[in-house]
Amino acid sequence: MAYFDAASAAPLHPVARQALQASLDEGWADPARLYREGRRARLLLDAAREAAAEAVGCRPDELAFTSSGTRSVHTGIAGALAGRRRAGRHLIVSAVEHSSVLHAAEAHEADGGTATRVPVGRGGAVRAQSYAEALRPDTALACLQSANHEVGTVQPVAEVASVCREAGVPLLVDAAQSLGWGPVEGDWSLLTASAHKWGGPSGVGLLVVRKGVRFAAQGPADERESGRAAGFENIPAIVAAAASLRAVRAEAAEEAVRLRELTDRIRERVPELVGDVEVVGDPQRRLPGIVTFSCLYVDGEALLHELDRSGFSVSSGSSCTSSTLTPSHVLKAMGVLSEGNVRVSLPLGAAQEDVDRFLRVLPGAVTAVREKLGAPEPSTVVREDALVVDAVGKLCPLPVIELAKVIGDVPVGGTVRVLADDEAARLDIPAWCAMRGQEYVGEEPADQGSAYVVRRRV
Amino acid sequence: MAYFDAASAAPLHPVARQALQASLDEGWADPARLYREGRRARLLLDAAREAAAEAVGCRPDELAFTSSGTRSVHTGIAGALAGRRRAGRHLIVSAVEHSSVLHAAEAHEADGGTATRVPVGRGGAVRAQSYAEALRPDTALACLQSANHEVGTVQPVAEVASVCREAGVPLLVDAAQSLGWGPVEGDWSLLTASAHKWGGPSGVGLLVVRKGVRFAAQGPADERESGRAAGFENIPAIVAAAASLRAVRAEAAEEAVRLRELTDRIRERVPELVGDVEVVGDPQRRLPGIVTFSCLYVDGEALLHELDRSGFSVSSGSSCTSSTLTPSHVLKAMGVLSEGNVRVSLPLGAAQEDVDRFLRVLPGAVTAVREKLGAPEPSTVVREDALVVDAVGKLCPLPVIELAKVIGDVPVGGTVRVLADDEAARLDIPAWCAMRGQEYVGEEPADQGSAYVVRRRV
Repeated sequence: MAYFDAASAAPLHPVARQALQASLDEGWADPARLYREGRRARLLLDAAREAAAEAVGCRPDELAFTSSGTRSVHTGIAGALAGRRRAGRHLIVSAVEHSSVLHAAEAHEADGGTATRVPVGRGGAVRAQSYAEALRPDTALACLQSANHEVGTVQPVAEVASVCREAGVPLLVDAAQSLGWGPVEGDWSLLTASAHKWGGPSGVGLLVVRKGVRFAAQGPADERESGRAAGFENIPAIVAAAASLRAVRAEAAEEAVRLRELTDRIRERVPELVGDVEVVGDPQRRLPGIVTFSCLYVDGEALLHELDRSGFSVSSGSSCTSSTLTPSHVLKAMGVLSEGNVRVSLPLGAAQEDVDRFLRVLPGAVTAVREKLGAPEPSTVVREDALVVDAVGKLCPLPVIELAKVIGDVPVGGTVRVLADDEAARLDIPAWCAMRGQEYVGEEPADQGSAYVVRRRV
Repeated sequence: MAYFDAASAAPLHPVARQALQASLDEGWADPARLYREGRRARLLLDAAREAAAEAVGCRPDELAFTSSGTRSVHTGIAGALAGRRRAGRHLIVSAVEHSSVLHAAEAHEADGGTATRVPVGRGGAVRAQSYAEALRPDTALACLQSANHEVGTVQPVAEVASVCREAGVPLLVDAAQSLGWGPVEGDWSLLTASAHKWGGPSGVGLLVVRKGVRFAAQGPADERESGRAAGFENIPAIVAAAASLRAVRAEAAEEAVRLRELTDRIRERVPELVGDVEVVGDPQRRLPGIVTFSCLYVDGEALLHELDRSGFSVSSGSSCTSSTLTPSHVLKAMGVLSEGNVRVSLPLGAAQEDVDRFLRVLPGAVTAVREKLGAPEPSTVVREDALVVDAVGKLCPLPVIELAKVIGDVPVGGTVRVLADDEAARLDIPAWCAMRGQEYVGEEPADQGSAYVVRRRV
């Protein structure tokens, strides 16, 4: 059994466990009290703040402990926007941020603010130039992740921070995926992170606000954590978070090399072992432990189920694995295939033999799913000028499977129209065309859903 | 050494510790994921929700786990107010709620809403009739604690709930201090609580919203915990919270009797052992483990320090122990003495011998503080019609000490004016008059601070 979903939640690091257990006895009292139990709790909290600040590269009084990375993001964005309200109410985020950032942007828009979503290239990275173009006189805040949580692509944070700094706009960096590997470079203004992503316990987030950054905490007043995280401090978990951050940093350089070799192996071998696969994300500028690929003609949920049965825990950005039946916004923004999507994110200490076994198991799992799905006959009718595939009512990946089955019947230079009402088809049919060297002509309204027009080129 | 501040934070219950440690191995993964680690986490979360709901007396789908009691209060009040926005924007709270409720009310007012603070009697309890009088056609929500955190007085929640129900207004009950002792009676609509008050770990709050109550969660969207608690679930802590709630409930009936005997003893003996003491809070309708008293002519911080040196950890609502140098809003609303205030809140299992030792130590500690403070000479000047005590620039309890020193020089029927600019004097001089049978005439503006006029009656 191998857990390959560290980007969702990392197993508790042994140092975190030790620190948590040790501080359950010392850290339960109210650190605001002056009696001995309170003073002990305060000492633990202060020491944890010192350690976390050192790892982040900030002053201790710039760092607040919140109850989660999501809470840090929500509080950080709301407070920075309110602090800069005089400048205006325009927010910039990248299109591939974590949902907590995008939801904060939506809440800001619902409240009358405006937001620009900066696009990414096919590798998943933004360009600093795109942030420069998005900046306006009324921009209050810009947000950028340090690295993407679904495909591992590292973002040009230092360049974007410099562009923002020139415009006098603070940059908030969501460092949830990268903080365990090292401090965030560049002249950022706010930073958020989540302890359970680096092997710390659940229930601890970091919110860093650099001195001099205008910040007005929203919501009811609360005196704890500089007014930036309401509620009683969870000191045992905070101590465990800080101790484990220090511990993972101590092993980061060595472990990064090892995990990068393992993910390099997956990136190389998967396309050789499994046909019709697209490995997504930047091949160079990426986190050590994350690799993501999409398999044509595969139902993501069925594939995850097959892999789980073989003892592998991975996640997927395919539409069929989401509660809303829409593909991952990250894959969508990158314009890459979302069907049959698998994200492998290796925890610290992931064993090479588990990766090797994954590579042995994967081809059979993909084949099994494809065989199950390959059964339906394509329902094709010939019209005057073009072949029509009716995939209305069929969910991802069936529309693409049906397209692939008929493309051979189309004369080179001729077109085929795929009728589909599944949301994922809008993303996956163009992605299939790009992978196959066919021309994606465009989308037209149809009686039900849309017609996707493809011209055969090869 | 004895920790007598359980109302701030209870030491971790052994069952909480066991459950936490056991679930660190099983509960770290994302419960939204379908692989085995995620399914195990989901099972733990579901079981904890069932157990907590049973203890509260609600349906599991009515209960969300938040990151703290404060967070539950903030989220509950904001969501209930927004859900009833069509009814109006009027909020009712009692004057003695926890600061999290009062801060939420202030935030609501700052946002353009209105709030009524229902007064309490000298025992600290509200009357249902006062809530009935406060209800208006535009009242969106009423809030009432189940029992007071500073003096232990139990509130008439069922009566107030019934009054609110008749008016069609939901009642939110902050049950932080009482949930370990038993479910909250009455037909309430929302309930909040905090695990570390009953011996659970830090980092877990409960927010219960009854079916049919209009509720619109505020802030950015998040799919976890029915959209009512953003951020990754802290499952090990949640499991520990639920397990310990069940455990403390199992011992509640027996332990309530035992702790009530101990606090009864403190209530009886302290006025006998220490002169010039007022025991505050309702003597009958009160929590088993809390007893609060105030000592005339005593500096609360100095007394806490003396008690800490003798091995007792207690808290105080005196102005000198608060960062804002204002007396506790609870003591203020009750109109009782705030100087030399001591709250003893016994944890489960508190030993009788520790209480006995506290009663032996207290008189000497009070005497020591009074001797230190008794030194300054009163600066008195005789005016035409009244004695004037100039206590400007002197902090609590010095103005009252100076008043006490000169009252004997005032002829019966004559008045003395105490000039003071310490905020606590406004509360403590009238309270001293009530305790001493003197007449408090009133407050007049003065060059610096106020003049408090007292007529000698005895």
